[in-house]
Amino acid sequence: MSEVESGSVDAHGRSHPAALDGRVRRSKDAVLRATLDLLTEGGVGGVSVDEVSRRSGVAKTTIYRHWATRSDLILDACSRLSAEQEAPDTGGFESDVTALLTGIATLLGAARWSSVVPSIIDAAERDPELAHIHSRIQMGHTAPLQAVIAQAVRTGELPADTDRSAMIAALVGPLFYRRWFSREPLDQEFVRSIVRAAIKSSNGSLQT
Amino acid sequence: MSEVESGSVDAHGRSHPAALDGRVRRSKDAVLRATLDLLTEGGVGGVSVDEVSRRSGVAKTTIYRHWATRSDLILDACSRLSAEQEAPDTGGFESDVTALLTGIATLLGAARWSSVVPSIIDAAERDPELAHIHSRIQMGHTAPLQAVIAQAVRTGELPADTDRSAMIAALVGPLFYRRWFSREPLDQEFVRSIVRAAIKSSNGSLQT
Repeated sequence: MSEVESGSVDAHGRSHPAALDGRVRRSKDAVLRATLDLLTEGGVGGVSVDEVSRRSGVAKTTIYRHWATRSDLILDACSRLSAEQEAPDTGGFESDVTALLTGIATLLGAARWSSVVPSIIDAAERDPELAHIHSRIQMGHTAPLQAVIAQAVRTGELPADTDRSAMIAALVGPLFYRRWFSREPLDQEFVRSIVRAAIKSSNGSLQT
Repeated sequence: MSEVESGSVDAHGRSHPAALDGRVRRSKDAVLRATLDLLTEGGVGGVSVDEVSRRSGVAKTTIYRHWATRSDLILDACSRLSAEQEAPDTGGFESDVTALLTGIATLLGAARWSSVVPSIIDAAERDPELAHIHSRIQMGHTAPLQAVIAQAVRTGELPADTDRSAMIAALVGPLFYRRWFSREPLDQEFVRSIVRAAIKSSNGSLQT
């Protein structure tokens, strides 16, 4: 992996900036790929900077130049697994939230991401830094839901007294339950039934 | 821990059966306590029969006499953490299911049990034996819910076409979500709102 290692040579100014950028990017990609491989294989406990360095062929000093701590590295790797969704604007709450939940169901169906998350939750029970990573990932999921709920309250599709936190638990909880607890399939029919149940129980208006 | 170790002496018939029973029970208790301590401290990965033996003072040969594999030991220890609930019979679906969900919420509030479960889920992603343990724990939660839903369908409190699996996900999912994902409180108000939402969305009858 001498090409990746030569990133340090660039620091002496012997390459053009564009080539340097390319090398830094390739080196960072290799590090994040190795981190994700280790996360998938053995969970958070399987990730050490030593092993990431060995697998990626990138020197530890180079890794620490880009990520101050092992936790920063894990957070960055995880954020690449689950691109945060934008709040959609399909013209109605029911279709907006169906689009968001379909995105979450797809992510839960992706073997890699959904096999890494329990390891982060487990580590978060004992490690405050990992708890912080977990809450960042968590916010990435709920922010667009918060946005579409707030929008629906503004337009009157949901009542003004809607309990937003309870609604998010009612929308996302059943998906997580099926993926990690009962291990049942997450199909479009299930997503639709969750959305309709949440709207109905909030006394909001359903599309016909 | 010579008293516990002398359990092996009993096998030679030098004690009365009652004394033998007491010693076996104390020895098994010590092993399960040590297993639970290790599970709580470091998750499933932290449990080895060597370390359980060291902590409990019970010889490995004695441990393997009672539990054929490490997985059997973990399953037995976990089953002591979460006594399975009986299906209640309070006279109505809404109060039956509120009683069951209140029991689950209490269990989730118990630091030990709820900090061990993510570790089992994580291990279940990679280890078929642990996946089996997880599904046994899972069934322990859902069996009484299945029973009260079936009863409510018989009495007509829930419609005959109630999707039982979707209803269980809608009842339990939000509790699990709050405990392990959003880390919000699980109060009685939240339990009641989940139950009412599930009944409403099934077109069942609510108590007044």
